[in-house]
Amino acid sequence: MERFAVGVDLGGSHLAVGLVDTVGKIHDLKEERIDNLAPPEATLAIVAESIKKICAARKNVCAAAIGLPGNLDSSKGICRFSPNFPAWHHVEVTPYLAKAVKLPVYMLNDVRVATLGELHYGAGKNLKNLVMMAIGTGIGGGVVAHGELLIGAQEAAGEIGHMTIDPRGPLCNCGNHGCMEAIASGPAIAARGAEAILRGQPTRLREKVKSLEELSAQTVAQAALEGDPVALRIFREAGHAIGVGIANLAVTLNPDRFIIGGGVAQAGEPLFSAIEAEVKRRLYILPPETVSIVPAELGIRAGLVGAAAYGFLQSGVKIEPT
Amino acid sequence: MERFAVGVDLGGSHLAVGLVDTVGKIHDLKEERIDNLAPPEATLAIVAESIKKICAARKNVCAAAIGLPGNLDSSKGICRFSPNFPAWHHVEVTPYLAKAVKLPVYMLNDVRVATLGELHYGAGKNLKNLVMMAIGTGIGGGVVAHGELLIGAQEAAGEIGHMTIDPRGPLCNCGNHGCMEAIASGPAIAARGAEAILRGQPTRLREKVKSLEELSAQTVAQAALEGDPVALRIFREAGHAIGVGIANLAVTLNPDRFIIGGGVAQAGEPLFSAIEAEVKRRLYILPPETVSIVPAELGIRAGLVGAAAYGFLQSGVKIEPT
Repeated sequence: MERFAVGVDLGGSHLAVGLVDTVGKIHDLKEERIDNLAPPEATLAIVAESIKKICAARKNVCAAAIGLPGNLDSSKGICRFSPNFPAWHHVEVTPYLAKAVKLPVYMLNDVRVATLGELHYGAGKNLKNLVMMAIGTGIGGGVVAHGELLIGAQEAAGEIGHMTIDPRGPLCNCGNHGCMEAIASGPAIAARGAEAILRGQPTRLREKVKSLEELSAQTVAQAALEGDPVALRIFREAGHAIGVGIANLAVTLNPDRFIIGGGVAQAGEPLFSAIEAEVKRRLYILPPETVSIVPAELGIRAGLVGAAAYGFLQSGVKIEPT
Repeated sequence: MERFAVGVDLGGSHLAVGLVDTVGKIHDLKEERIDNLAPPEATLAIVAESIKKICAARKNVCAAAIGLPGNLDSSKGICRFSPNFPAWHHVEVTPYLAKAVKLPVYMLNDVRVATLGELHYGAGKNLKNLVMMAIGTGIGGGVVAHGELLIGAQEAAGEIGHMTIDPRGPLCNCGNHGCMEAIASGPAIAARGAEAILRGQPTRLREKVKSLEELSAQTVAQAALEGDPVALRIFREAGHAIGVGIANLAVTLNPDRFIIGGGVAQAGEPLFSAIEAEVKRRLYILPPETVSIVPAELGIRAGLVGAAAYGFLQSGVKIEPT
């Protein structure tokens, strides 16, 4: 009998709930806009309704699992706080949902479920040791060792965006100086673009936006693709920071593969070539060409199918990648 | 019936071979001086003789396992090269030994077996996720995830001394700039002491040695304990570099514990307090006080009992820590 799990991807503005089978195929999908300032009960009620609708008339759903951004105690199903949901403080997510949908419900950080998605159904299929990196508004990640996701003593395993890349580097939102996130996240790239404009550097970035606030990593990526020297330099610097981080993880974990996803990774060539150049510059104790760095394969659905995979794993149901 | 494994710790100048039981107790120990310039066959013959002697009249020895420094292909039992044994090139270590001693023989990098020693019988007992760091002539390490040592795709997992701590830092012997090893290893600390003397900095380090070449990390540690300001600064800088590395591993692996061994760690307080200060300065996304940093417990025997533990593990014999 075919088994299903419900994968839930809850972001600050958007909810996606999907019915997923053991080969990672999405059979049904519901999406809703989310008001991130609503009270947590209201948001969880919407999530519960979506799960119930998608399970209606199905008897072979073994679990639901939810990925969401924030500081979690996933063993208890509690979201301590979340930068994406300012009103959430110590919210009992899975106890609420399990009662409402009458299924076992599990929870993990959003980038960690995306890592499971790529591991079981994407760029990490059949591998035992990998590092996933999602470069967007922040830089999150996930570490898989011996075929299993690392959670960590305080559930912080995978927070690779907060590795110090340059001890004297720019201030990070976390409070530290020189985190990878402070140099290479989307907002960091946009801010460097704005800085270049304000300093009068030779760039056409200003022509691309009505106001400086509008400038995004995508704007800088577009300018880089058109050959704008300042935009190219900014991506080179971001790639170097990511490359130092990858080289550091290559000598500590020496994984089978690094998988890079997230909006900033869409920039493609200017970013990936800078990453590879820096890895080559940093790595002497193992051949840099043995370090496999690939783009993520599942795009925006990595979190949803990864959450479903987590539901299967927690239920003891075998995952069968195609 | 009591089961035994033979643990072999082969260094550039010294061989220790021990008969170890499953609780990690050494029942018999043989030690020899080693000429690291001798042909590999001569050295391996000495190792084989020691193993045979220690096993004589024992029927319940399940395996021998050897830890040695170098670039290894441990699945094939080959030492590709070793900085400690300049004459060794592509030496078939375990095939030779297995034939000579008529036992299954296994091999791993010296710091990796020490990690297994601390995991099963030392400061990491009963833990599932830990990072070991051995700070001596170089800085090596080992990573344990989900209760099992990480080997890595090119057998480089645990080479944490070659994390880039400061992208513009001093040249490392490996070729990279700013590796932890280039800032905080024994020779790096000694070199910084010599540099301070040569620059005429206010230190009494020079009085402690007949010649600058004699200056060691131990000399600098001694001066630091006596309150020498330059020696204290050098240990502070070394501790900061190690602290950045630990903070980086705390956010990527978030292990239960960091275990610090090796000769330089003997310096104690001036080093450990600098490490802790830097971890506190760097970590914002998890409480720094949750990061457990402890000295190794097994001292110079970590490698030997760890090798024996590896022999048990590879033979499917259960390890029983006391």
